Amino acid sequence: MSIRVGIVGISGFGGGEAMRLIAGHPAFEPVYAAGEGSAGQRLSERFPGVPAKLADLVIEKWDPSRLPQLDVLFASLPTGASRDALARIPREVKIVDIGGDHRYADGWTYGLADVWPEAIAGKTRIANPGCFPAAALTALAPLLADRLIAPENIVIDAKTGISGAGRGGGAGFGYAESNENLIPYGLLKHVHMPEIESTIARISGGSAAGLVFTPHLVPMTRGILATIYARGRATSDQCLDAARSFYAGRAFVRVTDKPPQTKWATGSNLAFVSYAADPDRNLVIALGVVDNLGKGAAGQAVQNANLMCGLPETAGLEGAPVWP
Amino acid sequence: MSIRVGIVGISGFGGGEAMRLIAGHPAFEPVYAAGEGSAGQRLSERFPGVPAKLADLVIEKWDPSRLPQLDVLFASLPTGASRDALARIPREVKIVDIGGDHRYADGWTYGLADVWPEAIAGKTRIANPGCFPAAALTALAPLLADRLIAPENIVIDAKTGISGAGRGGGAGFGYAESNENLIPYGLLKHVHMPEIESTIARISGGSAAGLVFTPHLVPMTRGILATIYARGRATSDQCLDAARSFYAGRAFVRVTDKPPQTKWATGSNLAFVSYAADPDRNLVIALGVVDNLGKGAAGQAVQNANLMCGLPETAGLEGAPVWP
Amino acid sequence: MSIRVGIVGISGFGGGEAMRLIAGHPAFEPVYAAGEGSAGQRLSERFPGVPAKLADLVIEKWDPSRLPQLDVLFASLPTGASRDALARIPREVKIVDIGGDHRYADGWTYGLADVWPEAIAGKTRIANPGCFPAAALTALAPLLADRLIAPENIVIDAKTGISGAGRGGGAGFGYAESNENLIPYGLLKHVHMPEIESTIARISGGSAAGLVFTPHLVPMTRGILATIYARGRATSDQCLDAARSFYAGRAFVRVTDKPPQTKWATGSNLAFVSYAADPDRNLVIALGVVDNLGKGAAGQAVQNANLMCGLPETAGLEGAPVWP
Amino acid sequence: MSIRVGIVGISGFGGGEAMRLIAGHPAFEPVYAAGEGSAGQRLSERFPGVPAKLADLVIEKWDPSRLPQLDVLFASLPTGASRDALARIPREVKIVDIGGDHRYADGWTYGLADVWPEAIAGKTRIANPGCFPAAALTALAPLLADRLIAPENIVIDAKTGISGAGRGGGAGFGYAESNENLIPYGLLKHVHMPEIESTIARISGGSAAGLVFTPHLVPMTRGILATIYARGRATSDQCLDAARSFYAGRAFVRVTDKPPQTKWATGSNLAFVSYAADPDRNLVIALGVVDNLGKGAAGQAVQNANLMCGLPETAGLEGAPVWP
Repeated sequence: MSIRVGIVGISGFGGGEAMRLIAGHPAFEPVYAAGEGSAGQRLSERFPGVPAKLADLVIEKWDPSRLPQLDVLFASLPTGASRDALARIPREVKIVDIGGDHRYADGWTYGLADVWPEAIAGKTRIANPGCFPAAALTALAPLLADRLIAPENIVIDAKTGISGAGRGGGAGFGYAESNENLIPYGLLKHVHMPEIESTIARISGGSAAGLVFTPHLVPMTRGILATIYARGRATSDQCLDAARSFYAGRAFVRVTDKPPQTKWATGSNLAFVSYAADPDRNLVIALGVVDNLGKGAAGQAVQNANLMCGLPETAGLEGAPVWP
Repeated sequence: MSIRVGIVGISGFGGGEAMRLIAGHPAFEPVYAAGEGSAGQRLSERFPGVPAKLADLVIEKWDPSRLPQLDVLFASLPTGASRDALARIPREVKIVDIGGDHRYADGWTYGLADVWPEAIAGKTRIANPGCFPAAALTALAPLLADRLIAPENIVIDAKTGISGAGRGGGAGFGYAESNENLIPYGLLKHVHMPEIESTIARISGGSAAGLVFTPHLVPMTRGILATIYARGRATSDQCLDAARSFYAGRAFVRVTDKPPQTKWATGSNLAFVSYAADPDRNLVIALGVVDNLGKGAAGQAVQNANLMCGLPETAGLEGAPVWP
Repeated sequence: MSIRVGIVGISGFGGGEAMRLIAGHPAFEPVYAAGEGSAGQRLSERFPGVPAKLADLVIEKWDPSRLPQLDVLFASLPTGASRDALARIPREVKIVDIGGDHRYADGWTYGLADVWPEAIAGKTRIANPGCFPAAALTALAPLLADRLIAPENIVIDAKTGISGAGRGGGAGFGYAESNENLIPYGLLKHVHMPEIESTIARISGGSAAGLVFTPHLVPMTRGILATIYARGRATSDQCLDAARSFYAGRAFVRVTDKPPQTKWATGSNLAFVSYAADPDRNLVIALGVVDNLGKGAAGQAVQNANLMCGLPETAGLEGAPVWP
Repeated sequence: MSIRVGIVGISGFGGGEAMRLIAGHPAFEPVYAAGEGSAGQRLSERFPGVPAKLADLVIEKWDPSRLPQLDVLFASLPTGASRDALARIPREVKIVDIGGDHRYADGWTYGLADVWPEAIAGKTRIANPGCFPAAALTALAPLLADRLIAPENIVIDAKTGISGAGRGGGAGFGYAESNENLIPYGLLKHVHMPEIESTIARISGGSAAGLVFTPHLVPMTRGILATIYARGRATSDQCLDAARSFYAGRAFVRVTDKPPQTKWATGSNLAFVSYAADPDRNLVIALGVVDNLGKGAAGQAVQNANLMCGLPETAGLEGAPVWP
C-alpha cells in the first residue's frame, strides 16, 4: 500500500531535501511536485540524480485548488505564503508545513517529534519546527523537563550553514562573499524567538523571560550548532543522564560525552546533544547539533508524516549521515 | 537471509563509506570491522551517527588469520598493504579490494561494474577500479566501444576532492593549506595511468599510446570530474547517443546534455557523462563525474558485491545524491 | 606629486580589488568612485576595512559626462557597457578598461603587461586582458616565442574561483549550490576564445587553429589555474629555461620547477608558470597560475597604469601573497 | 635606516604571516629566519610568492645561541618552547613573543596594543596577546573601562578559522574532516581563560569571576568572531559611543553599527567591534572581529614592534583587507 504524497516548494532547499527523502521512502509515493522557480521542468532537470522512477514527473506551478488526490502534502513555502493557500486544502489531506506560518497557530500541532511524538500521531495538520529551534530545543528539553536549569535568561548562540538562508538568498549569500566569512545577524530580534520562548515555557511550565538568541551564518552548506548557556546547579553527568533518560528508546537523538560536531549529522535526521556544567559557576552549557535540512526541516517533516500516518517513525530515515 | 560482511580499513574514508552503505543494505550484515587507527573503539565512537544496531560493534586490529566467518570482505587498505594479507583469506570468502593492489592482477577480475557487469557475477575476487579511472573510463567506454574516438593521444584532465588523497594525507592536506587552493600534481607520472591504459586498450582493441593524465586537488571534500580531450570526427549528438545506447538499462550511469557537476553525484553511486564534439576540429570532449567515495570507491564496491552475490545490482545503493 | 584616479564599477569584485590596490598605492590618489549597486554609500559602507583617509568618499552613480578632473580612470564594467561610455572620456584621461569591450579593439592597446611592457608605456587607452587569458598566455608566451610548441591544437583546461563569475552571478552562484561543487561550462564556445587566439597568433606568428578552451568553476573565491596541453618536442628543462629567459628581470612572473598552486598568488599580482614535457609523446604541459582579481584583473590594471604613467611597474603591487 | 629583524617559527602560520608583513615593512629588514619544518630551504621554497629580494634567505634551524646581530626578534613557537630559549637572548634585542609562554609573565609587558599603546613604547619584551583574547578584549575594553557592563559572569562564545589550530594540527584538522564541519571544543577549560580573566580584571578593576569561554572551529582559513554576552543596563548607543571614544584616534579599531563579519578583517591588522544591548533584559552583546593571523597574531606583533622601536604604529600595516 502506497501513500500518495505531494511536495510544494520543490525549488527550495527544504523542498528538495523532502523530495530526496520521499524518493527513498518505503511507503510514500511522490505523485505531485510544485515549485515556483522550476515549474515545467521534469524532476530530473531539477535534480539530475533523482531515482529513475521519478525522472519524468513534471514540476507544476503551485495552485492549491488544482491538486491531484493526495494523502500527505509537504509544504515548504516562504514565510507568509502558506497561510491562505494551505487553508484551502481539504481537511483529509494530511499537511506538514515545513515553513514558518503555522507554528503555534490554531488548528495546528507543533511537531517537535522527538519530544512530543504522541501528540503528533493521527493529526492532520503539523507545523514543523524551525531549524534553529529544532537544534536548541532538543538540547534544552531534558534539562527543562527535569528542572536542571532555569527557564529564564537562557542564551542561545546559534550557528547555521548557509543553506539555512534559503535558495533565493540574494547576492549577499553568493559564494565569494559568504566563503571564508562568518556573519552574525539579527541581533536581539530573530524571527525564531517566539517559537523558542513558547516551547521553553511549555516544557518547563515557567517563563522564558530574558531569552537571548543570536544566529550566525557559517561558511558551510549544511549544519546547525546551538551553543546554549543556562543557569543551574546540575553537574555535567546529571545533565547527560537526564538526556539519556528523556530520549531513551528514541531513534533520532544521540546523547554524547564529547561535544558534537555538525558533520556528524549531515544528510540525516539525527540530533546530537551534549552538556558541560559547572555547579560552582551556576552554569550549564548545552549543545545541540542537527542538519538544518534534516532534523531542521525535511527529515523532521518526514518523521512527522510517519507519525501522522501510523508508520514506523524511522521509515525512510534510517540512512547514516554522510561522512566526510 | 543475511550475508555476513566484514570491512577492513574502516579508519579511512573509503572504508568508512563502505560501512555507511553496508549499514543501510537490505541483505548485508556487518559482523566484522577492522582498522589501524581506530582499533578498540566501538563503531559509534568512530562514526557517531552509525545506526543504533551497529553502535557496539568493536573495531578490531586487522589480522587476516583471525577473521570470523564471512561471506564478503571489503578491503580498503593502503597501496602495497593488501597483496600478502588478502592471499591468506579462504577462497570461499568473496573479496572486493577497494585498494589498488589487485587491479589487472592474476586471479582477480577488474570490477568496472557499469561496463562489464556480467564478468563480475559469481566471481570471488574483484579489484575495484580507482577513483579517477572510474570517472574517466565511464565517460570514455561508449566512445571507444563505438570507435567514435581514437584510443591514442587521449588527454585526461582530472580533478578530485581532497578525500581522494586519503585520510592520512599529512600536513599538506590540512584545511588551511588546502582551502582556497587548487593543486595540480603528479604530472606525467600518476599511479592510475597503467589501469587507465589497460582498460582503454581492452575496450577499444587498440593502443592507448600517448595517454596523458593530469590530476588536480580541488578544495572540496568529495567529487571527481574528468575532462577528457580525444580525437574523433563524431558530433556531440553521436557521442550522446552512443552513451545512451551503451548504458541503456544500466542503473547508475546518467547521460546528460548539460555538462555534469560533481555535486550531482555526492553521496551516491551515480556516474554522469556528457559530451561536446566539434568534427571540424577533430575533437571530442568527454566529461565524467562521480563521487570519489561512491562510484569511485565504496559505492562501486557494494555494486560489485551485489553482482558477486547474485543480488539486485542496486541493493543498498538506491539513495538519491545529497543536494545541496 | 599625486595622480588623480577614478574607478567605475566599484560594486563588483574587479572594481573593489582595484580600490584596494589603489588605496595602498604610493602615487595614486582615489578621487572618484562610481558603482551601480552602491551609489550613494560612503566607501566605508561598501568596504568596511578601507583606509580611514578614504572612508568618507561617496560612491557616485556612473555618468561619463560628469567626471571630476582625472589623470587615470579604471573601468570595470559588465561586457557591453563600456564601449559607448568610455568613448566620451577626454583623450587626456588615461583609461585602463578591466572589462572585456576593448580587447583587440581599434585605438586600444592590449595590456599583457609582462609580455609587452614597452607597448604600454605612454599609451592612454589600455584594454586589460581577461582573467583566463592572463593565466594561459603568461604560461604559453615563452614557448610560442621560442617555437617550442606549435600554435595549433592547443588545449586549455582552465579552472577559476567563483569570484571570476562576477558579483551579480545569480542564484546559480549561491554558496550552497557552488560549495562542494566543480562545474564545467561553456564548452566549445567560451567568450575568451578570440582574445586567446589573437594573442597566440600574434606571439607565434602562426595560426591558433584548433584551439580548445574549457573553463571550470572551482569552489574557492579566488585563483585561476590553466592546465595547457600542447604539441612539441621540447624537454621540461628547455621549457623552464625558455620561460626563465623570457621573463628575466620581470617582477611579476615566477618560473617554478614544482607545479604551482593557486594559493601561491592569492591577493597578489604574481603569475606562476611551470612546465612538464615528454618529447617521446610530442607533449608539453604548461601551467599558469594567477589570482583572477590580481594579475587576472585589478593587479594587472594597476601595473598597466603604472606603465602608462611612467611609474615603476611595481608601485603599489609589492605586497606578498596572503598565505594561508 | 633599517632595523634588523629575525623571525623564529617561520614554518607555522603565525611566523609565516609575520614574514609576509615584515617583507612589506618600510623599516624592517629580515635578516634571519628559523623554523623546524623548513630549515635548510630558501625562503622562496617555503613561500613561493615572497618578494624577490628575500628569495634566497636560507631558513635556519632555531638555535638561540647562534643568532646574527638583531634589533628585533619575532618568536612564534609552540607553547612551552619559548620560555628557556628566549631567556638566552641578549636584553638589547627587542622580542615580541607571538606564542603563549610570556603572557602576564614577569619581565614581560602584555601587548594589547590598541588598549595600552603607551605601555609598550620603549619596552624590549612584549608578550603578544592570544588570538581569541585579541578579539574578545578589544570588544570588551571600552565597556569595562566605562563600567557599562559588570566584569563578572561574562560569556564569550568564540569562533575561529582553522589556521588558529596551527599548522601541525594533525589528522583532525585535515581538509575532508574539517570542511563542512563546525566543531566546539575545550568547554570550560580553554587555555586562553587566564589571559582573558587577568585582562578583564585589570581593565575593570573588578573580578572576572564566572567567566565562560567556549571556542569553536569554523570551516574557514582565517578569522575570529567573539560573540560576548554580558550584564549591564547600557543601551546599544551608549556602548557604541563608549567604544568610539575609547578608540578615538586609534588606527586599527573600527566601531560599526552593523554586526561585523570576519571577512572584513582578512589579511589586515584591523579589529571591528559592535554592540547590541537591551537594558530591559540587563543584557549587552558585544562583538569583536579580527583576523586570527593579523590582529590575532602577526599583525599585532608588528604593531607592537613598531611601538617598541618608536616607529609610526601603522608602519607596514596600512594594507586594506582582502575582499572577497
